Amino acid sequence: MNRVDGRKNSDMRSVKITRNINKHAEGSVLIEVGDTKVICTATVEERLPSWRKMEGKGGWLTAEYGMLPRSTGQRMMRDAMRGRQNGRSLEIQRLIGRALRSVTDLQALGDYTVTLDCDVIQADGGTRTASITGAFVALADAMHNLVLKGKLEKMPLRDLVAATSVGRVNGELVLDLCYSEDSTAEVDMNIVMTGSGRFVEIQGTGEEASFSRDETSQLLDLAELGIRQLVEYQKSILGTLTDGIGGPR
Amino acid sequence: MNRVDGRKNSDMRSVKITRNINKHAEGSVLIEVGDTKVICTATVEERLPSWRKMEGKGGWLTAEYGMLPRSTGQRMMRDAMRGRQNGRSLEIQRLIGRALRSVTDLQALGDYTVTLDCDVIQADGGTRTASITGAFVALADAMHNLVLKGKLEKMPLRDLVAATSVGRVNGELVLDLCYSEDSTAEVDMNIVMTGSGRFVEIQGTGEEASFSRDETSQLLDLAELGIRQLVEYQKSILGTLTDGIGGPR
Amino acid sequence: MNRVDGRKNSDMRSVKITRNINKHAEGSVLIEVGDTKVICTATVEERLPSWRKMEGKGGWLTAEYGMLPRSTGQRMMRDAMRGRQNGRSLEIQRLIGRALRSVTDLQALGDYTVTLDCDVIQADGGTRTASITGAFVALADAMHNLVLKGKLEKMPLRDLVAATSVGRVNGELVLDLCYSEDSTAEVDMNIVMTGSGRFVEIQGTGEEASFSRDETSQLLDLAELGIRQLVEYQKSILGTLTDGIGGPR
Amino acid sequence: MNRVDGRKNSDMRSVKITRNINKHAEGSVLIEVGDTKVICTATVEERLPSWRKMEGKGGWLTAEYGMLPRSTGQRMMRDAMRGRQNGRSLEIQRLIGRALRSVTDLQALGDYTVTLDCDVIQADGGTRTASITGAFVALADAMHNLVLKGKLEKMPLRDLVAATSVGRVNGELVLDLCYSEDSTAEVDMNIVMTGSGRFVEIQGTGEEASFSRDETSQLLDLAELGIRQLVEYQKSILGTLTDGIGGPR
Amino acid sequence: MNRVDGRKNSDMRSVKITRNINKHAEGSVLIEVGDTKVICTATVEERLPSWRKMEGKGGWLTAEYGMLPRSTGQRMMRDAMRGRQNGRSLEIQRLIGRALRSVTDLQALGDYTVTLDCDVIQADGGTRTASITGAFVALADAMHNLVLKGKLEKMPLRDLVAATSVGRVNGELVLDLCYSEDSTAEVDMNIVMTGSGRFVEIQGTGEEASFSRDETSQLLDLAELGIRQLVEYQKSILGTLTDGIGGPR
Amino acid sequence: MNRVDGRKNSDMRSVKITRNINKHAEGSVLIEVGDTKVICTATVEERLPSWRKMEGKGGWLTAEYGMLPRSTGQRMMRDAMRGRQNGRSLEIQRLIGRALRSVTDLQALGDYTVTLDCDVIQADGGTRTASITGAFVALADAMHNLVLKGKLEKMPLRDLVAATSVGRVNGELVLDLCYSEDSTAEVDMNIVMTGSGRFVEIQGTGEEASFSRDETSQLLDLAELGIRQLVEYQKSILGTLTDGIGGPR
Repeated sequence: MNRVDGRKNSDMRSVKITRNINKHAEGSVLIEVGDTKVICTATVEERLPSWRKMEGKGGWLTAEYGMLPRSTGQRMMRDAMRGRQNGRSLEIQRLIGRALRSVTDLQALGDYTVTLDCDVIQADGGTRTASITGAFVALADAMHNLVLKGKLEKMPLRDLVAATSVGRVNGELVLDLCYSEDSTAEVDMNIVMTGSGRFVEIQGTGEEASFSRDETSQLLDLAELGIRQLVEYQKSILGTLTDGIGGPR
Repeated sequence: MNRVDGRKNSDMRSVKITRNINKHAEGSVLIEVGDTKVICTATVEERLPSWRKMEGKGGWLTAEYGMLPRSTGQRMMRDAMRGRQNGRSLEIQRLIGRALRSVTDLQALGDYTVTLDCDVIQADGGTRTASITGAFVALADAMHNLVLKGKLEKMPLRDLVAATSVGRVNGELVLDLCYSEDSTAEVDMNIVMTGSGRFVEIQGTGEEASFSRDETSQLLDLAELGIRQLVEYQKSILGTLTDGIGGPR
Repeated sequence: MNRVDGRKNSDMRSVKITRNINKHAEGSVLIEVGDTKVICTATVEERLPSWRKMEGKGGWLTAEYGMLPRSTGQRMMRDAMRGRQNGRSLEIQRLIGRALRSVTDLQALGDYTVTLDCDVIQADGGTRTASITGAFVALADAMHNLVLKGKLEKMPLRDLVAATSVGRVNGELVLDLCYSEDSTAEVDMNIVMTGSGRFVEIQGTGEEASFSRDETSQLLDLAELGIRQLVEYQKSILGTLTDGIGGPR
Repeated sequence: MNRVDGRKNSDMRSVKITRNINKHAEGSVLIEVGDTKVICTATVEERLPSWRKMEGKGGWLTAEYGMLPRSTGQRMMRDAMRGRQNGRSLEIQRLIGRALRSVTDLQALGDYTVTLDCDVIQADGGTRTASITGAFVALADAMHNLVLKGKLEKMPLRDLVAATSVGRVNGELVLDLCYSEDSTAEVDMNIVMTGSGRFVEIQGTGEEASFSRDETSQLLDLAELGIRQLVEYQKSILGTLTDGIGGPR
Repeated sequence: MNRVDGRKNSDMRSVKITRNINKHAEGSVLIEVGDTKVICTATVEERLPSWRKMEGKGGWLTAEYGMLPRSTGQRMMRDAMRGRQNGRSLEIQRLIGRALRSVTDLQALGDYTVTLDCDVIQADGGTRTASITGAFVALADAMHNLVLKGKLEKMPLRDLVAATSVGRVNGELVLDLCYSEDSTAEVDMNIVMTGSGRFVEIQGTGEEASFSRDETSQLLDLAELGIRQLVEYQKSILGTLTDGIGGPR
Repeated sequence: MNRVDGRKNSDMRSVKITRNINKHAEGSVLIEVGDTKVICTATVEERLPSWRKMEGKGGWLTAEYGMLPRSTGQRMMRDAMRGRQNGRSLEIQRLIGRALRSVTDLQALGDYTVTLDCDVIQADGGTRTASITGAFVALADAMHNLVLKGKLEKMPLRDLVAATSVGRVNGELVLDLCYSEDSTAEVDMNIVMTGSGRFVEIQGTGEEASFSRDETSQLLDLAELGIRQLVEYQKSILGTLTDGIGGPR
């Protein structure tokens, strides 16, 4: 069976990350995964939330996620007009934050809070996984910035992290679903992995459907295949900034 | 290593489901999993959300989740005073809804909307998985009610569904985490399975940690062990209401 | 005339208070008045609102009231989804707070804030008066707890307090209205009294009706009759905790 | 004992009602009770809330209450900035609505909704009772307007209604409390009565205090004394508009 | 062509300012411009917003604007019920604040914050310009109050300020538009000027229309004509309070 | 005096408009004015707000404005988290809507609503005027789209529209202020003009300052100079789409 855009089941869409696209932010990228486009900015502030300060476990990292009203086929109501973020946005930004904290040495981050804003400019499926993959690069740039300014001695990163989606569409197991696949998928799984090949997050869902243990195993294989490519791309872009993390380059 | 409450790593806490605890609701249970107590009510209304009516795909099922302010060790601010549900509540109620829709024949549900309210009276870890396990029983009772009144010809259920948590705590893989385990877990995984042993949802998270493919496999084994017990308990309670679904009794 | 549940006009419904139903709260009860069921928890925190600290008049006591969505015959929208508490809830929790402050020695409560959460599990009329009657017991337990831990020298209570409703239904004056009576009452009166038989609150309302001075007098008689029974029951439950308050035992 | 403004315990403050102070509203008054000033407008709209239309019991009457930010000694935050009405405002506007509905023949009001807006321009105690007394006059004018235009055959009023406060201040029972009395009162009671001398609402509260049966009786006497004067004043102002209601003129 | 109320194109409506209409506020006026009536109160508080304190540039002045629900021909929903101020109100109160800050010596205002509340009692066009003209008088009174109490050495005012509207209605350029003119105007311009004849704000808008350079010039002439009269009236009212500012008296 | 970026007082920054940057929207551009970057999308929907439908005056056009959290030097709180749009955003989006409606033939737009979303990706002063200039191009593309599909017979545009800012900075009158100029400007004026050289909007403000009639005249000259260049650029981009409007090409 052919996929809607002619890809093979185990093909990723083309990925492109453009760095330094915002002159104000400490780190910023535009990530494009097929037609999905997300701006990720990393803001570094020398302050901590009071609850974090009391914990005494070092810095903090948090994420926020939003979509421009016309990033989608049908225009959505602006979150600010509805008076709150919707449940989906909250769920996604919690995921992005957890994913990036899993590879960050918060203790070494000291008194800094990093906020990763992931804003979807154009959506075509996989906006949350693209956000994670792009936000990691923005984060690395922001941290490198702190090192260059002498505010941190070394990069407070323990590994790289990237993410993609896999799923069952029309009975076929496929990698990196675009929107038209995602909206008809029987099973949808978002996977976050480190550069060392360990899982950070597995979120598999059967909407009005279920899946077997064997399918789970094959989907995890597909995801690993895709994420290895994403991590290689992140390394090629970041160069020496990833030295010493995420396994041999 | 001994667990905090003396259980073996593969032991569930004791589970008790009390039916018909609310005289108004079409279905209602109190589920107790160790010290976690959740009231689940199923409300049946003969109306559909307008978007669902337009889809023409039958009935609808949705869930809401809340915690009493002092269900937890520290009193929490009442959601209604904060002016909105928090992100965690929204995420959990979306999960409960998806889990129960996965075993419901919405087409057969006709013009009815079922709302499952899961309200935590006392929390000690695993409130979302207890909600799913309990809500299924409330749902079955509510549907049976529709059949008894002649409004539906047969139970619009395709299978049973139950859920539990597994995780890595102090390096050990354990089943059914209580709060003190959950709050120190390196890896936390919530698993939803049908009576037939198929996955509906896998949500595995490493907060500031990661996990291997092999650990994933062992955790899924543990979860399956626990959920089979939960499903057996559901069947024993519901009796003939589960005839023909969820495999041989 | 017979009442809907066969009671005489001056009969209360059966009342049952179960203590210590929540392992986290400093005081907690389930109060059942007929089919009305309310969970009351008392939370003690060693902090004061800033405005209260400035007043320098001792501790503070406040109450919050909520209803589970399906505590009623028709499911209600969850307060948290509407984005605010409704006017009725706010009015009731202000009443509960005033009632309990009237018998509390706030000066003696020192630097503590007590929050009484009254959450209706099942409603059948009289939820606000049941909340007051039950919350007093939870409060006494929480205060006894402070004494046992040596944080307070003696119970900061000056009296007991309980409440019931009276009204005119189909021209008859009746005590302790259930929901079907309440919804058709011409006059509805909620009365809060101390153990010494003094009024704390009289809230009499004629919805699209009015009432005479003579009826007022008879309704206050009925209420006093009922509240005396409630206070006796509170005393029998609390035992020595009520020594020295509320008149001779 | 002398009251702060030299009145005797059974003296009302001077009352003045100015009609037609708003050129847009169907009925409008400025009521001044001592230094308390409230603008009451009655808006008539030919529409019904959908729930009321379904009831099929005639028209509807509702009230809203607000305070200008600097109507009080200390400037208050504007309700609109806080994002909601506070609990006190909601409680008061529910009271005003009930009071006026008690003397209105809603069935005869047909398809009309009347909204009474009571906005406090300057507060010095008793704003809720002044609102009721003034709103009745605005309501009568608005209804007369409907009769004059031929939209209603006769005034849909069954009686007059007015309100005042009584209380115990420094151990003395007094009528019509001003702010400095209200803020130190041991007992505070708001009474709403019809022109025929029947009660519509009794709201007696002991804030950190209690009151006896005998005091209750004396306070009701005082209130009746005051309200009779208010009703006489309303009659003198409204003239023939009150013919046939509220007893002989 | 005749205007709806018989005025010539260059005629203002009659203006009346009544001072000290609120016993609580440090300054207060009722301003009437034709049928437009606005209550302006000035509240002085000895505190600064934290961001202003950090700037170290002296005191602060801010404004808030509201409309009573029935100040308009059709009753409007109360801002507090909608849960927020509408865009128009926010825009207007920002304008009023800027206008009054432009003539205030904030440095000399020291540690005080002045809040100007402009509440529309009855609207007939030009409520924002009437608010500015009236608020200046309330502000001057409040500042004089600070001088009289010895809290400030001299009036922290650099000039007077007043405002009016001009516009093109049915092709004619007119001064001081009433509501029926405003609602059909092709061009609507609000002008704020100081007593010295300098502009503080020019807000000209063509709703579904445009205007030429030449019309702009004529409209500014008309506005200046009107504002000079308003400033003369302010001076005549305030007397010696305006000595030394706004040019010769 | 030299400007911060070396421009002469009457120089604009470089302007670049890139069309069709969003695959979903009916019209979309990225406009860059110096370092200010705004994405403008035009969404066409075949529906009307109910109030507009009742007016029977044809279609409707509205605008919304937002800023990404890190579009500015200091990260701003996300509007959606604050629970509402701030006053500045509301004021700006009302301005954008009015500006574009002034050149649109709403009658000819029939049953369509056009929504212009202007989202600031990077801010460096002049975001509201860049939004207007860019949104016009997105609007023209969206309308051309309706013509190409045969849904409209001809472009419902009467003219072009563009905008820029002028102001007094350090005593000098300058065109097209960047952020560092804007934040220290004594006078700030935003001007919207049509292609025919007529004003649509003049918004001149002296923050803690004022300005003379003569300065007003010179500022309008400067603005006209800049806007003529913007309109020429719009025409060069849109080509035949602007035939017949905005004067000779």
